[in-house]
Amino acid sequence: MSAVFELAHALIARRSVTPDDAGCQALIAQRLRACGFRIETLHRGDVCNLWATHGEEGPVLAFLGHTDVVPAGPVEAWCSDPFEPSAREGRLYGRGAADMKGSVAAFVVALEAFVAAHPRHPGTLALLLTSDEEGAAIDGVRHVARVFAGRGQRIDWCLVGEPSSREALGDVVRVGRRGSLTATMTVHGVQGHVAYPDLADNPIHRALPVLAELVGRDWDPDPFPDFPPTGFQIANVEAGTGASNVIPGTARIQFNLRYSPRWSADALVAEIEGIVARHGLRADIEWHRSGEPFHTAEGALRCAVREALAEEGVVPDENTGGGTSDGRFIAPLGADVVELGPVNASIHQVDEHIALADLTRLPAIYRRIAEALLLR
Amino acid sequence: MSAVFELAHALIARRSVTPDDAGCQALIAQRLRACGFRIETLHRGDVCNLWATHGEEGPVLAFLGHTDVVPAGPVEAWCSDPFEPSAREGRLYGRGAADMKGSVAAFVVALEAFVAAHPRHPGTLALLLTSDEEGAAIDGVRHVARVFAGRGQRIDWCLVGEPSSREALGDVVRVGRRGSLTATMTVHGVQGHVAYPDLADNPIHRALPVLAELVGRDWDPDPFPDFPPTGFQIANVEAGTGASNVIPGTARIQFNLRYSPRWSADALVAEIEGIVARHGLRADIEWHRSGEPFHTAEGALRCAVREALAEEGVVPDENTGGGTSDGRFIAPLGADVVELGPVNASIHQVDEHIALADLTRLPAIYRRIAEALLLR
Ligand SMILES: [Zn+2]
Ligand SMILES: [Zn+2]
Repeated sequence: MSAVFELAHALIARRSVTPDDAGCQALIAQRLRACGFRIETLHRGDVCNLWATHGEEGPVLAFLGHTDVVPAGPVEAWCSDPFEPSAREGRLYGRGAADMKGSVAAFVVALEAFVAAHPRHPGTLALLLTSDEEGAAIDGVRHVARVFAGRGQRIDWCLVGEPSSREALGDVVRVGRRGSLTATMTVHGVQGHVAYPDLADNPIHRALPVLAELVGRDWDPDPFPDFPPTGFQIANVEAGTGASNVIPGTARIQFNLRYSPRWSADALVAEIEGIVARHGLRADIEWHRSGEPFHTAEGALRCAVREALAEEGVVPDENTGGGTSDGRFIAPLGADVVELGPVNASIHQVDEHIALADLTRLPAIYRRIAEALLLR
Repeated sequence: MSAVFELAHALIARRSVTPDDAGCQALIAQRLRACGFRIETLHRGDVCNLWATHGEEGPVLAFLGHTDVVPAGPVEAWCSDPFEPSAREGRLYGRGAADMKGSVAAFVVALEAFVAAHPRHPGTLALLLTSDEEGAAIDGVRHVARVFAGRGQRIDWCLVGEPSSREALGDVVRVGRRGSLTATMTVHGVQGHVAYPDLADNPIHRALPVLAELVGRDWDPDPFPDFPPTGFQIANVEAGTGASNVIPGTARIQFNLRYSPRWSADALVAEIEGIVARHGLRADIEWHRSGEPFHTAEGALRCAVREALAEEGVVPDENTGGGTSDGRFIAPLGADVVELGPVNASIHQVDEHIALADLTRLPAIYRRIAEALLLR
C-alpha cells in the first residue's frame, strides 16, 4: 500500500481520544526528524503540541492539524472497530479517518517528499499539530499561538487540513471562519401561583419581547464578502418547575451568534446588553467568546490552493461556512489561513471514513501548494 | 375542650394523605347516623366519598368538604409532628388543620346541633365529603356529581368549607371560581447545527411571535363582575439539547389560562388553535380542561352567608379569586356555590394551623347559614 495509507492506518490505530495523543505525534516527529526537520514540543497539561520546521529564513508556510479525535460512541454501532482501521469498498474506516488523521498523514508524506526533492528550498516549511482541537481547545493551538506571539514566530501562510469538502475532494475550501459568541442568560422574575399573577412576575413573559427583537433583527444588512450573514440562534431554553400552576421565578436562555468580520465579540456584547437594558429586563448574562472571525483575502495562498486543485480538475467553492477551527488562533498572528481537507459527511459519526482515492491524492495536492508558495 | 376541637383533633390524627381517607369518613358517618342522618357511600377506586342527608323534601343545602390532605413534606421542618395535632399559642397545628379538617369538623358539629334543635326541619340538610380533592380529583366530587346528575339528585345551595379567608375568619368568601385550562404545546422544527441555520428550522424562533401574541393579548377587555380578568401564563418551557451549538428539533411549552365566565374551555381552545394556525406554527397541543368557571349571583345563599358573618361583626369581600375547588363540579348541577372557611395563609406549608378562636366560631356560623336557608 501507499505511504499515506500506511501512516493513516498507523495513526487511526492509536486510540487518541481528545486530549490524548496516544503516541501519534511521537511517530510523526521521528519520521520528520529523520528527514531533517527540527522538532519542538510545546506540551501543556494533558495536551501534546508539536512544531516541526524545515528551512531557516524567508516566509513560513505551516500545515496545521490535530491528532485527537472525538469519542467513538457505542462500538457496536460501527461496522468495524473504530480503532482498528479497516479498508473496504474503496474506503478507509476508523475514528479520525476524515477528521483528521487522513490529512495529517498526507501532510507528513507531502513534507517528506518536498524536502527530498528540494533539500535547500527557500523559506520555512512547518507542521503544527495539537491533541486538543476536539476538546477544550485551551492548551492546544490557542496556547501555541500565545507562545509564538510572545517570541515573534511568524507564520505567513497556514493550510489547515480540516475536512472542508462537501461531496468531492476539494469542492469546498474555507477562506475564513465566522466568529462564535455564546450567551447564557438568566432572566429574573418572581415565582408565584398562576391563579395570582399579580403577586408574581413571569420571567418568560418578560424575556419574550427581548428574544423577539434579537431573533427578528437583521444582524448583517451589508454582508461581508465570502461570509454568510451573521446569525443569531437560541439553542436552549429552560424555565418552570414542571408544575402547570406555578409561574417560574427564573428562566435560562442560551443563545449563540456566528458572526462575520462586520462584528467583534465586544461589539456584539455591548449591542445585546444595550437591547436587554432598554427593555428593562432583569437578567444576568454569562458570555463565552469562542474566537473572533478571520478572513483570508485573495492572494498567494488562495491562488496556490486553487492551482493545486486545478491539476485535479477541481474548481473549489471558496467560502467561510461551517464551524470554527484552530485556524482562528493562527490568523491573529498575521497569517493567511485556508482550510482544505477530505469530505466531511461522516465526521463525528459512526463508520467515519475517507475515500482511499482521496487519501491517495491528498499528499500531491498539499505538496503542490508548498511548491507554489515556497519555490516561486 | 369543645366538640369541634375534639373532632378536628381526631381527624388530623388520621394520616389521610390524598387519596387515603384513613377512617375520617367512617368516624363522621358513625356520628351523623347516630343523630338521624341517612348515610350513603360512593367510594370509587382508592377514593372514599360520603353523602349524608337529613330531611326528605324541599330545597337541598349541602356542605362540601374533603378529608384528604397534601403530603406533609419533611417532618423535621415542622415544629411538631404534622399528624400529631398540637394546640399551642392559641392555634391548633397539624396537616389539614386549615385545609380542611377544621371546617369538616365544624360542619359535623353544626349539623348535629341543627338537627338536635330542629328535628323536623323543612328541606334537606346534607354533607358531601371526598378523599380526592388534593389529588387527581377524578374519582371524588367529579364522580359524585356525575352520579347525582344521572339520578336527578338536586342541590340548591352548596357551601364549601375551603379556607377562603385571607387575614381574619370570613374576611373573604368566594362566590365563584375561574375556569382553568392547561395546554402542553410541542412545536416542531428541524434540528441542526447553529453554524448552518439554513439547514435547520428553530422551533423556539417559530414559537416566539405566537407566544408574544398570546401573552400580549387582553383576554378580558370587558371583565365579568366579581371576577379577576382572564389571564394567560406560561408555566414551563423546555427546548434544547444542552449543547450551545445545536438548534433544537422541538420545543415544549406549557401554559395555563384562568378564565372568567366570558370564556369557555372550548372557545379558548378554538381561539388559541386559530392563532397558532394563522402563524403557520407546526405544533401539537394537548389540552387539559380542569373545570369551567362558575358564578353565584346575588341571592339567598350569598345573603345567608353575609348575615351569618354579620353576627360576628365581619363584612366579607365576596370575590372569585384563588385556585379551583370541588365547587366547580357541583355548580353545573344548578347549585349556587359559596366558599367560606378559615384563614389560608399556612395551607400546603409546614406548620399548617388554624386559630383556636376561629375553629370554635365556625360551627355557629355554618349553623346560622343552614337556619337562614332552611327555616325561613
Ligand atoms: Zn477536526
Ligand atoms: Zn382544600
